[in-house]
Amino acid sequence: MINAKLAAKSHPQHQSIVKLNSQVAFGGKELVIIGGPCTVENRQQMETVAAHLSTTSVQALRGGAYKPRTSPYAFQGMGETGLEILAAVSKKYHLPVVTEVMAISQIHAIASHADMLQVGSRNMQNFDLLKELGQAGKPILLKRGLAATIEEFVMAAEYIMSHGNLDVVLCERGIRSFDNYTRNVLDLAAVAALKQITHLPVIVDPSHAVGRRELVAPMAKAAVACGADGLIIECHPEPDKSVSDAAQALSLQEMLELVNSLKPIATAVGRSISELAVA
Amino acid sequence: MINAKLAAKSHPQHQSIVKLNSQVAFGGKELVIIGGPCTVENRQQMETVAAHLSTTSVQALRGGAYKPRTSPYAFQGMGETGLEILAAVSKKYHLPVVTEVMAISQIHAIASHADMLQVGSRNMQNFDLLKELGQAGKPILLKRGLAATIEEFVMAAEYIMSHGNLDVVLCERGIRSFDNYTRNVLDLAAVAALKQITHLPVIVDPSHAVGRRELVAPMAKAAVACGADGLIIECHPEPDKSVSDAAQALSLQEMLELVNSLKPIATAVGRSISELAVA
Amino acid sequence: MINAKLAAKSHPQHQSIVKLNSQVAFGGKELVIIGGPCTVENRQQMETVAAHLSTTSVQALRGGAYKPRTSPYAFQGMGETGLEILAAVSKKYHLPVVTEVMAISQIHAIASHADMLQVGSRNMQNFDLLKELGQAGKPILLKRGLAATIEEFVMAAEYIMSHGNLDVVLCERGIRSFDNYTRNVLDLAAVAALKQITHLPVIVDPSHAVGRRELVAPMAKAAVACGADGLIIECHPEPDKSVSDAAQALSLQEMLELVNSLKPIATAVGRSISELAVA
Amino acid sequence: MINAKLAAKSHPQHQSIVKLNSQVAFGGKELVIIGGPCTVENRQQMETVAAHLSTTSVQALRGGAYKPRTSPYAFQGMGETGLEILAAVSKKYHLPVVTEVMAISQIHAIASHADMLQVGSRNMQNFDLLKELGQAGKPILLKRGLAATIEEFVMAAEYIMSHGNLDVVLCERGIRSFDNYTRNVLDLAAVAALKQITHLPVIVDPSHAVGRRELVAPMAKAAVACGADGLIIECHPEPDKSVSDAAQALSLQEMLELVNSLKPIATAVGRSISELAVA
Repeated sequence: MINAKLAAKSHPQHQSIVKLNSQVAFGGKELVIIGGPCTVENRQQMETVAAHLSTTSVQALRGGAYKPRTSPYAFQGMGETGLEILAAVSKKYHLPVVTEVMAISQIHAIASHADMLQVGSRNMQNFDLLKELGQAGKPILLKRGLAATIEEFVMAAEYIMSHGNLDVVLCERGIRSFDNYTRNVLDLAAVAALKQITHLPVIVDPSHAVGRRELVAPMAKAAVACGADGLIIECHPEPDKSVSDAAQALSLQEMLELVNSLKPIATAVGRSISELAVA
Repeated sequence: MINAKLAAKSHPQHQSIVKLNSQVAFGGKELVIIGGPCTVENRQQMETVAAHLSTTSVQALRGGAYKPRTSPYAFQGMGETGLEILAAVSKKYHLPVVTEVMAISQIHAIASHADMLQVGSRNMQNFDLLKELGQAGKPILLKRGLAATIEEFVMAAEYIMSHGNLDVVLCERGIRSFDNYTRNVLDLAAVAALKQITHLPVIVDPSHAVGRRELVAPMAKAAVACGADGLIIECHPEPDKSVSDAAQALSLQEMLELVNSLKPIATAVGRSISELAVA
Repeated sequence: MINAKLAAKSHPQHQSIVKLNSQVAFGGKELVIIGGPCTVENRQQMETVAAHLSTTSVQALRGGAYKPRTSPYAFQGMGETGLEILAAVSKKYHLPVVTEVMAISQIHAIASHADMLQVGSRNMQNFDLLKELGQAGKPILLKRGLAATIEEFVMAAEYIMSHGNLDVVLCERGIRSFDNYTRNVLDLAAVAALKQITHLPVIVDPSHAVGRRELVAPMAKAAVACGADGLIIECHPEPDKSVSDAAQALSLQEMLELVNSLKPIATAVGRSISELAVA
Repeated sequence: MINAKLAAKSHPQHQSIVKLNSQVAFGGKELVIIGGPCTVENRQQMETVAAHLSTTSVQALRGGAYKPRTSPYAFQGMGETGLEILAAVSKKYHLPVVTEVMAISQIHAIASHADMLQVGSRNMQNFDLLKELGQAGKPILLKRGLAATIEEFVMAAEYIMSHGNLDVVLCERGIRSFDNYTRNVLDLAAVAALKQITHLPVIVDPSHAVGRRELVAPMAKAAVACGADGLIIECHPEPDKSVSDAAQALSLQEMLELVNSLKPIATAVGRSISELAVA
């Protein structure tokens, strides 16, 4: 039904491992948890976040330097300065970095500063960008489009893979629906389906899916229970002061509690969560 | 935001217990798992199912005697004969029964034969029926409408409650969306949201949500992890011969394996699953 | 594909005529325009509306006596008193009346006072009600459910028809979608599709579809252009004081202007609009 | 509510005129109809289409040289050879050309060969591309994303405009929904809303919206009736042999009949359709 050549499982146990760095990999027994703010705001903010996360089971850092915004007049991110902050903090705290690439012209700079390049929902079918990322030399975190079918999602990965880069991780982050109680509807059956269809690791972004802080933890738990290979979760030293997506960011303390609460569920489904991200 | 008077939590720990019978109740530490076929087909089928389920942790039996069907020419269920089969099997195997009520005229007969009355998705805003169920004297399993908002769902419960029946259990069973890979999209964030908004027990129907056998187990696990108070799952002695919804029914063996696989997850979130439904 | 036996066209020109009374019929060359408030509020309101509409091309009166409301605590309509007001005003101004039936127990009273019984969106698959309306002896206006497929909509009509009542008019009134700029999304392609699939008249309710006064007129025009057999439009003597759906009601003057603006479009597609509803 | 600075109307009669060439413009009294195949397949095909359309009221030619496809293994279009065919045929038959741009690297070549650059649905929020099109020196046809809100659509235009190009035409082409009877749901209320919110011309693509040949004509009529400034419609010399979107393409004869049927509707709403595209 879904004609993927490179992303499709060749047998039921077929599972790819995508390495984020020498210590952290997606698709193995150990889940990968990525944390950090929506947007890189300044050095101090990222220092605070990274210092905290490096003492927890969170193994990677997120933060946007280039931000896709509905309005051209909204803050578009710190750009290269943001990348430099990410790189410095990453090195200091031994946390690999995932950050979004919105344009071919940004690939080189981002690939120089970050460990993994994220393709956002709005660009899931930006085929020009996908093809170029086939040559990026870094693993790709591909987010599902807001109204993308499972087939379209897998075939978007296929664009990257067929252009040379097999290190693709899929990320379910909610689809558009009719009830604005939540920001989007988290489609966890898609996670389970993707785990059956493809050999690629699949992670979940509960923060963007629900858009409400109080629903992030239960959705993170559900994601782990249904077989996700990891999570990407927004947290901020002062959530209410976040320049973007304030309503969905966890405090650093809430992040710590959430990660700890996931451990017994991971164990229950035969997975694990790192005791500490770094030695 | 949601102006429920009777369904709303009065404090964060406010949680109702809805008794199915003297031994089984929704909303406590122990999850309630309901199993059975989509449709009551004959006595032998129900005997086989009930005999099997009575040896597992499944605590209640489902099966439709009156079936809502898109076409008036499709099989509409066995009706009162089906109710009698349900009642006989229930008594023999000590499994309380949940079955759907589609019309006010059926309430009396169903309430005489079953332990819990289910309102299906299509009737979630059949206000006339909801009001009458306020006087039914039996607990109600209220399924979310195919395109009902969380607010509309809670207020439908409020219709039943404000007419005299406080024993309402909510059931998330998937909402309509754009990708036909799955039958519907299971909205587990709604489950978490409902647990925060109301004191009513909330259960999940993964079978109707996904419509594909191979996705039922991961969604059942996710539901338990995010706080659901129970599950209602379709199983059949010969799934491929089921008169309705064949693609989503588990075999009896698959049902047993699923229920066992849920136990460690329930434990991980501080819940439990009955070791045996009956003594 | 859609297995309707009674609602399906037997040949391309197959078109049913559904009579509202001896002078007004759906499905012929002449379009039927129904106007009136969302809710019957009092005698004076209905007198004002009917007196005005009777001098325009509007041929029938709408107004809810029994109102489906999300909350049980919201105003549920005037009930039988509302029906009596509708009947009195109908007789005085020679305008046939369409009003909603929500329950089997209301059928007799409504059929005694009104010329056509409306099934609302929430009840489109209330099969029990549909079957009973097969015996109501009055034409039925069947509104599409909020998330009903075209097939489900046609088969709901089939329920009424197969139980004895062939006088069914379909009404597209918008489906649920993701953008809350409009209340719903008016699916005019469904109107064109229904005109090709079934021989039943198909009308459009632009008011509930868009939920914004300023978009009602362009959608009414579009509906006429694509082949609708009529329109049902909300208007009120003082729209901003309407007890329900105030944002979408037209003033009586706007209603007059709209109806006049539709005439050249009707002519352009080979249809007509009554010059005056009554002699 | 929608914070557009450049796209917003400054007064109710504010309406931009976007010129396609010296003879054809969007936003005036005269509607612009664009016709042609989904994909440029070869010179003969385009000659046949253009020769035919040049004798009708169709004023511009469409045809894809670069094709966005779900699968990387599907035909991706003829590329620059296709552009050359478009340019040659355009010159010979005096029909300006609209064709899709999928990548910044294609802008220069397309702008050299075509009169208008189309941004497809999948790229509506490819902000990098939008910004660059602000410098393209050609008018832009911006198609609505599959799940884009009206606000997001207007703000995507704002990206192009704020980067220097005010010549933007919006195109509604259907949104994703739950019923697969039609390919998408044509949201004509969005057309009416956009005409009220922005001064930009707004056209409609009924072909991609419905995905079924027999529904194109009624939706084209509805679009004209509700105020669209033009239409873009797929037609093909041999629709069933079209390399893409065969089910929705009209034959050249059907295209002629459709355009003629639109004229009285255009007149009815105070608009007109060119008697002949060229002298």
